[in-house]
Amino acid sequence: MKNTSAVTVVGSVALDDLHLPSGYFENVVGGAATFASLAVSLFAPVRMVGIVGTDFPDSVLTDLAGRGVDTSGVLKSAGKTFKWVGKYAQNLASRETLDTQLNVFADFRPTLPESYRQASYLLLGNIHPSLQLDVLAQMDKPKFVAADTMNLWIDIERAALVRVLEKIDCLIINDEELRQLAGVHNIRQAAKIVRDLGPRILICKRGEYGALLFDDLGIAFVPAFPLETELDPTGAGDSFAGALLGRLAELDRTDHTALRDALGYATAVASFCVEGVGTKRLLSVTPADVSERLAAVRALAS
Amino acid sequence: MKNTSAVTVVGSVALDDLHLPSGYFENVVGGAATFASLAVSLFAPVRMVGIVGTDFPDSVLTDLAGRGVDTSGVLKSAGKTFKWVGKYAQNLASRETLDTQLNVFADFRPTLPESYRQASYLLLGNIHPSLQLDVLAQMDKPKFVAADTMNLWIDIERAALVRVLEKIDCLIINDEELRQLAGVHNIRQAAKIVRDLGPRILICKRGEYGALLFDDLGIAFVPAFPLETELDPTGAGDSFAGALLGRLAELDRTDHTALRDALGYATAVASFCVEGVGTKRLLSVTPADVSERLAAVRALAS
Repeated sequence: MKNTSAVTVVGSVALDDLHLPSGYFENVVGGAATFASLAVSLFAPVRMVGIVGTDFPDSVLTDLAGRGVDTSGVLKSAGKTFKWVGKYAQNLASRETLDTQLNVFADFRPTLPESYRQASYLLLGNIHPSLQLDVLAQMDKPKFVAADTMNLWIDIERAALVRVLEKIDCLIINDEELRQLAGVHNIRQAAKIVRDLGPRILICKRGEYGALLFDDLGIAFVPAFPLETELDPTGAGDSFAGALLGRLAELDRTDHTALRDALGYATAVASFCVEGVGTKRLLSVTPADVSERLAAVRALAS
Repeated sequence: MKNTSAVTVVGSVALDDLHLPSGYFENVVGGAATFASLAVSLFAPVRMVGIVGTDFPDSVLTDLAGRGVDTSGVLKSAGKTFKWVGKYAQNLASRETLDTQLNVFADFRPTLPESYRQASYLLLGNIHPSLQLDVLAQMDKPKFVAADTMNLWIDIERAALVRVLEKIDCLIINDEELRQLAGVHNIRQAAKIVRDLGPRILICKRGEYGALLFDDLGIAFVPAFPLETELDPTGAGDSFAGALLGRLAELDRTDHTALRDALGYATAVASFCVEGVGTKRLLSVTPADVSERLAAVRALAS
């Protein structure tokens, strides 16, 4: 497939330990790059950048390749894979971090294979803003760059994060992060403040309540699909971002209409993520499943 | 106007003391019946049932009458008007009740004027479920009955509340109340459990995140309109319910399509309520304002 419509994705690759209402799960394959790449792969060629330890199962990389993900940019390094240990509330509405083990991720300095640099779409998953800048600098000339971030970087690396914001087209963050970054509670005011820092597009994720997109045309909203079975929200936000970029790459358009179209796909794919523990459900989702879910999402708002 | 398309509204009428981020406001005109009646009045004739004390300003009843609200069913009784004293968080996202003074509301036994009994639409605002049953029993034969309730009645008056549920077409409650009433966290499962108790239509209000409607056709969603200026969320839920019933009465239809249409009007009118302290903004809203806001809400989801 053509590089012009490919998406390069950088972020964490993880073996998480998850305390979920349905049980305790160890070494669950996760990480922002993993979820996002799987989501992109439903729409467009994806070049995944990341690092794993020697404990990371080769079979997972094979599974990813089987879904069309180019994993040649995933480095295997001596040591253990990044691990997040998290505990979800019984209702899945909140979670707490019990432990974060950076492991091989601590010294990660991403180097992009040549084919990755030519991709037209770039998704900078939630990693240190300096690494996001480093990856961006290695790209030839992407048409569209989106980034995620988190409260930690807003707290301790604001200057580097502001430099990222100056260089990207689209920021995708959750509502609490948006409020923290802008320093105001009102979502519209916060969106204006953050867009004034650089990104012409801001997407505010609100978990089970859906997402808001702010651009020059105004505000667009997409609901989250109300699921009957919710197992594990880990990676839903990354799946959302991946599907958004994947769909834009598939269309090879980033205009207002394309963005609103992609927003529907993003919420549809994110809803599948929550239906299984880790990447389990995403690994089996087909484009036909996505179309069906998208129709259900659209019916919600009609 | 014809009684067939009139809405009878019962609920509290209040003089609230509000600790808002914008200041402290005493004796603010409020109450579920007041907000809901003002909202209905944008669409259909409304018959308001309630009780006030001798401290309640006649000018307010005149203002209501000026908006087309029939207040002949609002009893004036010796004593003080019902008062809620509430304090909102700086971000308006949560609130705490500092005091509830029932005053004349304590012995309220609503008696409906004859013209009220013939209304085709009935909105049972959040009052004791036994009073809701009492009002319902006085109605001739309403075509459509909607009710609100609250955590207090779910806690201490479940049996009476279940009898209400058996007799109504539509329950309008917020998400935490829905979860409490159903005893499960998952919204879809909770909606099924509550609909099995009686109401064929369930509307779950989610504050700044919008609302979900569950009926035989499936699920419909409407976003809340993201406001630049949010002053006082008091009464937004009552305005939502009032506009919903008002629009259904105006259409004189309660089918799936009418419900989805009315849902948009409900979120539009509720958004105005938040723009002023108490009933201030609602008192000046025109049908043209509502049409404009509705177009903005629809643009959000398109």
